[in-house]
Amino acid sequence: MSEQKGYRPRFTGMPTLMRFPWAETFEGLDVALVGVPFDLGVTNRAGARHGPRQVRDFSSMIRKTNHVTMVSPKELCVIADVGDVPIDIFSIEKSLAIIEGFYGELHRTGAMPLSVGGDHLITLPILRGITRHRSVGLVHFDAHCDTEGSYMDNPFHHGTPFWHATTEGLIDPQRTVQIGIRGSLSDADQWAFSREAGMRVIGIEEYFDLGYKGVIAEIRRVVGDGPVYVTFDVDGLDPVYAPGTGTPEAGGFNMFEALHMVRALRGLDVIGADVVEVSPPFDPSGLTAIHAATILFELLCIMVEPWARKSR
Amino acid sequence: MSEQKGYRPRFTGMPTLMRFPWAETFEGLDVALVGVPFDLGVTNRAGARHGPRQVRDFSSMIRKTNHVTMVSPKELCVIADVGDVPIDIFSIEKSLAIIEGFYGELHRTGAMPLSVGGDHLITLPILRGITRHRSVGLVHFDAHCDTEGSYMDNPFHHGTPFWHATTEGLIDPQRTVQIGIRGSLSDADQWAFSREAGMRVIGIEEYFDLGYKGVIAEIRRVVGDGPVYVTFDVDGLDPVYAPGTGTPEAGGFNMFEALHMVRALRGLDVIGADVVEVSPPFDPSGLTAIHAATILFELLCIMVEPWARKSR
Amino acid sequence: MSEQKGYRPRFTGMPTLMRFPWAETFEGLDVALVGVPFDLGVTNRAGARHGPRQVRDFSSMIRKTNHVTMVSPKELCVIADVGDVPIDIFSIEKSLAIIEGFYGELHRTGAMPLSVGGDHLITLPILRGITRHRSVGLVHFDAHCDTEGSYMDNPFHHGTPFWHATTEGLIDPQRTVQIGIRGSLSDADQWAFSREAGMRVIGIEEYFDLGYKGVIAEIRRVVGDGPVYVTFDVDGLDPVYAPGTGTPEAGGFNMFEALHMVRALRGLDVIGADVVEVSPPFDPSGLTAIHAATILFELLCIMVEPWARKSR
Amino acid sequence: MSEQKGYRPRFTGMPTLMRFPWAETFEGLDVALVGVPFDLGVTNRAGARHGPRQVRDFSSMIRKTNHVTMVSPKELCVIADVGDVPIDIFSIEKSLAIIEGFYGELHRTGAMPLSVGGDHLITLPILRGITRHRSVGLVHFDAHCDTEGSYMDNPFHHGTPFWHATTEGLIDPQRTVQIGIRGSLSDADQWAFSREAGMRVIGIEEYFDLGYKGVIAEIRRVVGDGPVYVTFDVDGLDPVYAPGTGTPEAGGFNMFEALHMVRALRGLDVIGADVVEVSPPFDPSGLTAIHAATILFELLCIMVEPWARKSR
Amino acid sequence: MSEQKGYRPRFTGMPTLMRFPWAETFEGLDVALVGVPFDLGVTNRAGARHGPRQVRDFSSMIRKTNHVTMVSPKELCVIADVGDVPIDIFSIEKSLAIIEGFYGELHRTGAMPLSVGGDHLITLPILRGITRHRSVGLVHFDAHCDTEGSYMDNPFHHGTPFWHATTEGLIDPQRTVQIGIRGSLSDADQWAFSREAGMRVIGIEEYFDLGYKGVIAEIRRVVGDGPVYVTFDVDGLDPVYAPGTGTPEAGGFNMFEALHMVRALRGLDVIGADVVEVSPPFDPSGLTAIHAATILFELLCIMVEPWARKSR
Amino acid sequence: MSEQKGYRPRFTGMPTLMRFPWAETFEGLDVALVGVPFDLGVTNRAGARHGPRQVRDFSSMIRKTNHVTMVSPKELCVIADVGDVPIDIFSIEKSLAIIEGFYGELHRTGAMPLSVGGDHLITLPILRGITRHRSVGLVHFDAHCDTEGSYMDNPFHHGTPFWHATTEGLIDPQRTVQIGIRGSLSDADQWAFSREAGMRVIGIEEYFDLGYKGVIAEIRRVVGDGPVYVTFDVDGLDPVYAPGTGTPEAGGFNMFEALHMVRALRGLDVIGADVVEVSPPFDPSGLTAIHAATILFELLCIMVEPWARKSR
Repeated sequence: MSEQKGYRPRFTGMPTLMRFPWAETFEGLDVALVGVPFDLGVTNRAGARHGPRQVRDFSSMIRKTNHVTMVSPKELCVIADVGDVPIDIFSIEKSLAIIEGFYGELHRTGAMPLSVGGDHLITLPILRGITRHRSVGLVHFDAHCDTEGSYMDNPFHHGTPFWHATTEGLIDPQRTVQIGIRGSLSDADQWAFSREAGMRVIGIEEYFDLGYKGVIAEIRRVVGDGPVYVTFDVDGLDPVYAPGTGTPEAGGFNMFEALHMVRALRGLDVIGADVVEVSPPFDPSGLTAIHAATILFELLCIMVEPWARKSR
Repeated sequence: MSEQKGYRPRFTGMPTLMRFPWAETFEGLDVALVGVPFDLGVTNRAGARHGPRQVRDFSSMIRKTNHVTMVSPKELCVIADVGDVPIDIFSIEKSLAIIEGFYGELHRTGAMPLSVGGDHLITLPILRGITRHRSVGLVHFDAHCDTEGSYMDNPFHHGTPFWHATTEGLIDPQRTVQIGIRGSLSDADQWAFSREAGMRVIGIEEYFDLGYKGVIAEIRRVVGDGPVYVTFDVDGLDPVYAPGTGTPEAGGFNMFEALHMVRALRGLDVIGADVVEVSPPFDPSGLTAIHAATILFELLCIMVEPWARKSR
Repeated sequence: MSEQKGYRPRFTGMPTLMRFPWAETFEGLDVALVGVPFDLGVTNRAGARHGPRQVRDFSSMIRKTNHVTMVSPKELCVIADVGDVPIDIFSIEKSLAIIEGFYGELHRTGAMPLSVGGDHLITLPILRGITRHRSVGLVHFDAHCDTEGSYMDNPFHHGTPFWHATTEGLIDPQRTVQIGIRGSLSDADQWAFSREAGMRVIGIEEYFDLGYKGVIAEIRRVVGDGPVYVTFDVDGLDPVYAPGTGTPEAGGFNMFEALHMVRALRGLDVIGADVVEVSPPFDPSGLTAIHAATILFELLCIMVEPWARKSR
Repeated sequence: MSEQKGYRPRFTGMPTLMRFPWAETFEGLDVALVGVPFDLGVTNRAGARHGPRQVRDFSSMIRKTNHVTMVSPKELCVIADVGDVPIDIFSIEKSLAIIEGFYGELHRTGAMPLSVGGDHLITLPILRGITRHRSVGLVHFDAHCDTEGSYMDNPFHHGTPFWHATTEGLIDPQRTVQIGIRGSLSDADQWAFSREAGMRVIGIEEYFDLGYKGVIAEIRRVVGDGPVYVTFDVDGLDPVYAPGTGTPEAGGFNMFEALHMVRALRGLDVIGADVVEVSPPFDPSGLTAIHAATILFELLCIMVEPWARKSR
Repeated sequence: MSEQKGYRPRFTGMPTLMRFPWAETFEGLDVALVGVPFDLGVTNRAGARHGPRQVRDFSSMIRKTNHVTMVSPKELCVIADVGDVPIDIFSIEKSLAIIEGFYGELHRTGAMPLSVGGDHLITLPILRGITRHRSVGLVHFDAHCDTEGSYMDNPFHHGTPFWHATTEGLIDPQRTVQIGIRGSLSDADQWAFSREAGMRVIGIEEYFDLGYKGVIAEIRRVVGDGPVYVTFDVDGLDPVYAPGTGTPEAGGFNMFEALHMVRALRGLDVIGADVVEVSPPFDPSGLTAIHAATILFELLCIMVEPWARKSR
Repeated sequence: MSEQKGYRPRFTGMPTLMRFPWAETFEGLDVALVGVPFDLGVTNRAGARHGPRQVRDFSSMIRKTNHVTMVSPKELCVIADVGDVPIDIFSIEKSLAIIEGFYGELHRTGAMPLSVGGDHLITLPILRGITRHRSVGLVHFDAHCDTEGSYMDNPFHHGTPFWHATTEGLIDPQRTVQIGIRGSLSDADQWAFSREAGMRVIGIEEYFDLGYKGVIAEIRRVVGDGPVYVTFDVDGLDPVYAPGTGTPEAGGFNMFEALHMVRALRGLDVIGADVVEVSPPFDPSGLTAIHAATILFELLCIMVEPWARKSR
C-alpha cells in the first residue's frame, strides 16, 4: 500500500453536524446534537422534515473555534451527533410522544441537547423531555409568538408550542422573551396569550428602535440567572437569510444581529437549544442551511462554557 | 354525504390577491385589486407580464390584520380582485389605450385601484385613467426616476412614465418625491428632468444619511395633504429582496424599511397605488413575489382607513 | 373610455384548469375539474399539496382542440373548474371523509370528476364517492402498484389506495390494469396483493417488450366495456418528465407514450379520472406541471365523447 | 516575464459561437454565425432575446470534428461569429426591416448564414434577405407549423413566419416539410394553410410510426435537389430536451433523433439554417442551450461540405 | 420514557449509501461501498468532488430488493459504506497514490469495491489497487472512450484512465467494451487508441442500430467469462438523465436501457464497479444523483450473486 | 438593403466587461480589464473558474456614468477588455507563473489592471507582476485574512496570498487593511500572521461598531498616500449578496456599504484592483455576478480619476 498521506477536506465524509463524531449512544456525552425530521405541525408549506439532513450537509463548513469568544467547543465538552429522533410520519400525537421519550432518555444521561428541526412544534416535546419539575426561561427568536390556540380544530401545530409549554408549566412566561415578532395577523388577538401570560414580546418595530444591543440588554434582563432554553426559528430572520422556510415574513433581523444576539447569551445557564423550520425545498441556494448551521455553532459555544465550568 | 367539516388552508383554492373575493364587475367596490400583465415597455429583461399571476399565488400568505396598525381592510371596505386588464401583447400604444380605458371605467364607479404589474410604464395609463382634471401628488419608490425621454426613438418605455405624467399634468412635480434613486447612468443628465421639474429626488446616499425615519418626514413634507398616488417599483428594494426584476440596481433599501415607509403614509389621501416590475423568471426563490404581496397589503391598509372615514 | 379592443393572452387572468370557467356549484356540469390539495399520505417527500395550484397555472398553455382526435371538449360538454376540495391538514382520516363527501355530492349531481392531486391516497375517497354499489374497472398508470398494506402501522397512505379499493369492492381487480410498475422493493412480496387479486400488472420490462401499442391492446382487453376509472400517477412517467414528485423511480415511459395510451382509451366508458403526485417544490423547471396539464386534457377528451353521445 | 506556457480551456475567453473567431465584417466569410436577439413575436412567454448569448456561452463545449461524418468545418470553410443583429426592442415591424437588411447585406457578400434566435418570427426576415428571386425548399423541425394567420389582429408573430414566406414566394410549399407537429389547437383548422399550400406535415404520431429513418427518407424525398433552408425550433424537441422555450409541447422527438435527422441532410444544397426559440429564463439547467449548440454544429457540418465542393 | 414506537422514514438519519451500515473498517465485508470525492482530473467544469455526498443523500430512496431479479443484496453479502477515500485536494499525483493505496488495502481484505466518484480518473487508481497481476475485462458505459493522451501537457486527466490502464496491463483491451461513445472530437483520431488497442467501441449510432438487447449480446460476447470491472460514467446517459456532469454530450441512451444493460451483466465475474462524474452543482433537480444511486443498486445486485455462490 | 436603423440593447452582442471594447493587445490602454479563470486554489467548493464569464455577461447592465461622483471612465481613460489569462488547469505552480508573466507584460505597457477572478490566490501572481521593486499598500475586503500557512502541505491556496505577498515584500503590512473578517476558525491563531505583521484587521464586530463611515476613515488612515492595490473578495459581503462563492461566511456587510467604501477610496493612488471568488454554480439567481460587476465599476471609477490627472 502507498504511504502517501491522505486528507479529509470539508466536503468529504459522512456529514455529521459540524463534523462532530457520530454516536450510537448518549452515554458520556456533555452535548448531544440531534435532528428532528418532523413537519406534520406546519399549517402551510411542508419540507422541514428534510431540514436535519441539509443542515448536516452544509454544517461541514463550520470550523472549530469561535472567532469572537475564541471558544473551541470540542476542547471543553464531549460532543457528538446522535442522529435523528425516530418519528411517526402519520401522527402528530405519536410523534410528540416519541420525541418526548427520546429527550427524556437523553436528559437522564445528563447530556444537554442541541437540536435541529423540523417544524417548531418539536420544541414542545423537547421541553417536556428535559424540563420536568421546573419551569425554565425561554429566549425565543421568531417572526411568530407561537402561542396560538387550535387551528382547524387541532391543538398541536407549529403555531402552538409555547401556549402548551406555558400551560403545562414547562416554561416561565415571566422569564420568556420573544424577539422579532411581525407579519399580518389571522386575528387581532392572535398573540394575546403571550402578552397576557407575561411574556416580553419584542416586535420587529420595537426591535429596530432598540437596536440589537438594546435588545440584548432586554433579553438578559428578562431571563435573568435561572435555567434557560433557547429556540431559534429561522423565520425570525429576514427571509433573504432564510428563504427555505414554511411561513416567511418580510422584514426581519439579519444574520450578523442573530449571531451577535446568540453570542450575547454567553454566561446564561442554557440547558438546551434548537434551530427550527429549515425547509430545504424552498431554498435553491442552500443559504438557509448555511445560516442554520452557523447559528447552531453559536448556540453550541454558549452552551459549552458554563457546562465546562460546572463539570470542573 | 359526510358531515366531516372541511378547511381551506392558504395554499388551496383559486389564488386571488390576498385571498380577497373575485369580482366580475367593479360595482359596489371600494377598492379594486387589479393585475396588469404588460411588459412591452422594458428596455432589458422581459418577464413582468408574469408578475400578477405569481404575486397572486404568493399573496395567499397574507392574513387579515396589520400587526402594527391593527387595520383589517376587509372590515373597513368592500374589496375584490377584479382580475387582469386585457392587453395587446404586440403593441405598446394599443395597450396604453386599453389600460387607460379600464382604469377610467373603474374610476367612474368610484372604486380606488390597487394594482400589480407589469412594467413601470403601466402607471402612466393608470394615472391617465384616474386623475383626469387634477394633478396628484406622487410617492415613488424606485431605483430609477423614470423621467427619461425616448430610448431607441420610442417615447413610451418603462423609464418614461413620469416624464409623460408630468408633461400631461397628471402629477404635480412639486408634490412628487422619488425615493431610493441610484445606479450607473446612461447619461450624466439622465434624471435632470426630475430635478428641473421640481421633484424631490432622494438618492440612496441621501436616503441612508437621513435614515428611513428622516425620509418619512421628508415624504410627508413634500406630498402634503392633497390627493396622492403611491407607486412602488420593486427594484427600489435592494436586489436581494427583489432578484426577480428586469433592471436590478445594487445597494437599495430593505423590506423592513419599505414596509415602515409605506405604513407611515397612513392618513394621506391616497387615491390609488401599485407595485410593479415583478419578473418571476429571474427569481427562483419566489421572494420577490412574497415581498410584493406584503407591500400590496401595507398599501391596502393605508388606502382603506381614510376611505372608510370618508364613506361614513 | 377608450374603444381600443383588449385581449386575454394565456398568461393572464385567473388560472383555472385549462382556462375553463370557474364554478361555485356543481349544478349543470357534465364534467367538474377538481383540485385535491392533500399530501398527508406520502411516505417520503411532501409537496403534492401544492400540485393543484401549479397545474392550474401551467394548464393555461392548453388550447381547445385535440390535434389527433380533433375533439373540442367545450363543444361537447359543460365543463368547469370547481376549485379545491376543502381538507383537514392535520388528519388523514378526516380528510378522507371530507373528500369522499365532496365527490359523493358531485356524483349525485350527475357530473363526472376529473381531478388533480395531491398524493395518490386521494383516489380512494374519490372512488368511494363515485362508485358506490358497483365495482368499476381501473386503468392505473404508475411506477407502484399502490396495493400495499400498512406502513408504520398506518393503513392509509399513498401506497395503499387500491388495496382498500379492492377490499371495499370499489374496483374490480379482474378489470384492473397497472402500467409501468418498477423500482426496488421494500419486500419481495410488496405487490403480491395485485397479482393475487387478479390485477393485470404490466411491469416496465414487459411494457418495453410489448411496446406501447401492445400495451394499449392489453389495457383494452383487460378493462373491457364496463365503467372504468383512470388514474395517472406522474411517477409512472420516467423521472425526466416528472422530476416534481415524491418518490421518483428511474426508467419509466415517456410523455408521447403516455398521451398515446390515454388517447387510446377513447370509447371506453370512463366515469372519472385523475392525475396525482405532482409535487412542485421538487421541480425547478415546471415541466411536471406542464405534463400533468397535458395529460389532464387528454383525459378530458376521452371523457367528453361518450358523455356527449349518452346525453344526446 | 515568465516563459511558462499557457492554455485556453473551453470555459475561458470570449464566448463566440462554437469558439469560432469573431469578425467585424462579412468579407471573406463562407459561413457567418449570427445571433438574432429578438422575441417580440412571442404569444406567451418572452425570453428568447437572451438565447444568442446563452447559446454562445454553452457552445464552448463543441469541439472541432463531427464524430460520425468526420467533417471538420474549420478545415473546409472560413467561418466566423459576426455577432448579433441590431434590433429595435419596441417594434416588430422595424426589427423585421433591420434583420432583413442585415441578412441581405450578408447574402450579397456570398456568405451563408447560420443563425441562433430569438423567436421563430426571425426566420421570415432572414428568408427575405437571402432568397430573393427564388423560392427555396424548407426543412422545418418544430412542434408547430407556424403558418397561422393574425393573432390579436397582429399579422407578424412567431406562429406566422411560413404563412408569410409562402405568400411572398420565399419558400416553395411543395418542397417544404414540417416535422414533429403536435399540441392542442386553438382552432381545428389552425394548420390548414400548411396542408392546403402543399406542405408535407409530419405530425408526431406519424413521426413515431415512420421512425426517424423513415422520416429522413421522407424529408429527402420532399425537398429534393434544389436549394433548401433548414429551420430548427427547439420546441420540436420533447420538452425534457428543451425546457427553456416559450411554448413547450409535450411528447416530441429526442436529441439523438434530432442530430441524426440533421446529419442525414448531408449533401443537400443548404443555403442557410437557424436554431430558434431558446429562452434561457425557463431552463435552470442550461440543457436547452447545450442542445441548441449541438444542433448548430450539426447544421454547420452539413453546410460546409457542399460549399467546400462548390468553391473548389 | 415513552413506550411509543418510533420509525425511521427514508429521509431521516445519516445518509449512508443505499442505507447500508457505516463501517470504520474493511474487515468482514463482502462488498465495500466507497466514495471518491476527487475532481482534479476534469478538463472543463469541476464539481464531481461533491458527487459522493449527494448520491449518498438521494440513495436513501433505494429499497432492499431488485424488482426484476428479486435479488436482495443484504441477504447474500455483508455490505457496508466505508466512507470516502481521503484525498489531496491540490495534487493529482498524490491523490492517485492515496486512492490506489486505499483500494489495495481494501482488496487485501477480500472485499469487492463499489464506488461513486468523483471524476473518471479515479477508475485508474482503483484498477491499480485491485487488479495487480492480472488484466481484467472492462464494461465501460460512457460518452467518451477516455483513452486520450496528454491534455495541456498533463498525462493524468479524466480523459485518460483507460489509456493508462491498458498500457499498464490493468485491463485487457480485447475484453473491453465501450458503450455510448459520441460527441464532437478535438481531433479526428481522439479515440484511435481504443480501436487500435482492440477495444470494442459501440458508438451511439451503432448502439441504436443494434438496440439495447443487441448491445447486451455484444457486451457479453466481448467480455466473456473472466473477471470484469464495470465502470459507468453518467455522461454516457443522455444529458436529460444526467444534467449534473462536467462534459455532457447530447443524444445518449436512457435510464431504462442503462438499468437493463447493467442487469444483463448478471452472472459475470464482476470484481468491482463504479459510477462516476456526478457533479451536483450543475443539476438543480437532483435527478443525476437519483439515477446514479439506482445504477449503483443494479451494480450491487449483479456483484452479490456470484459472490454469494462463491462463498457458499 | 433596408435603411431602418438598428439598436444594440444591453442584452445583445459579445459580453465584454461593462461593454468596453475588446482588445487583442495591451498597447495604448490606460486600464486593462482582465479575467482570471483559475480556481485550483480553493479548499472547498470549486467553480470560480467560471467567474469571469458570468461577470462579463451580467456586467452588460453597467451604464457609463457613476451616479454619485459623476465620473464617466470612458471619457477619462482608454479602457478595454483584454480577455482571460491563459491558465494551466492542472497545475497551481504553472498557473501562478503564467499569471505573473501576463501581468508583468501588462504592467510594462503602462496599463493598470482591473481583474475579475477566479479564486483569491490569483491576487498573488497579479501583485508579483505589477509591484516589483516596491511594497504597495493593500485595501482588502474579505471574510478571511488569507494570511494562512500551508493547508494539506500545500503552501499555495486561496487562504495564503497575503502571507506570501507580505513575505515577498509585495505589500507593506503597515499599509494593509483587512475589512470584514469573520467566521469560525480552524485554529485560534489562524489569522495571527496578519496582526503580527502589522496589518490593520477590522473584524466584522468592530466594523459594525465603527459604522461604514468610521471604517472608511480607518482605511484611509492606514493606507495613506502611497500606491495601493484594492482586492475585493465577494465573500466579504454578507452571503445574501454573494451566495455564489466557495466559502460563504454568515453575517457580512451589505452592497450599499461595499459600494460606498470603494467609492470613498477616491483620490488614492490605486495601481490595480480585483474582484474575486465569484463561483456561478452556487448562485441560481445571478446576483453575485451583478454585484461583482457593480463593484468592478466602482473600482474602475476610482482608478481612472487620478490616472487621468497624471496623464494630463
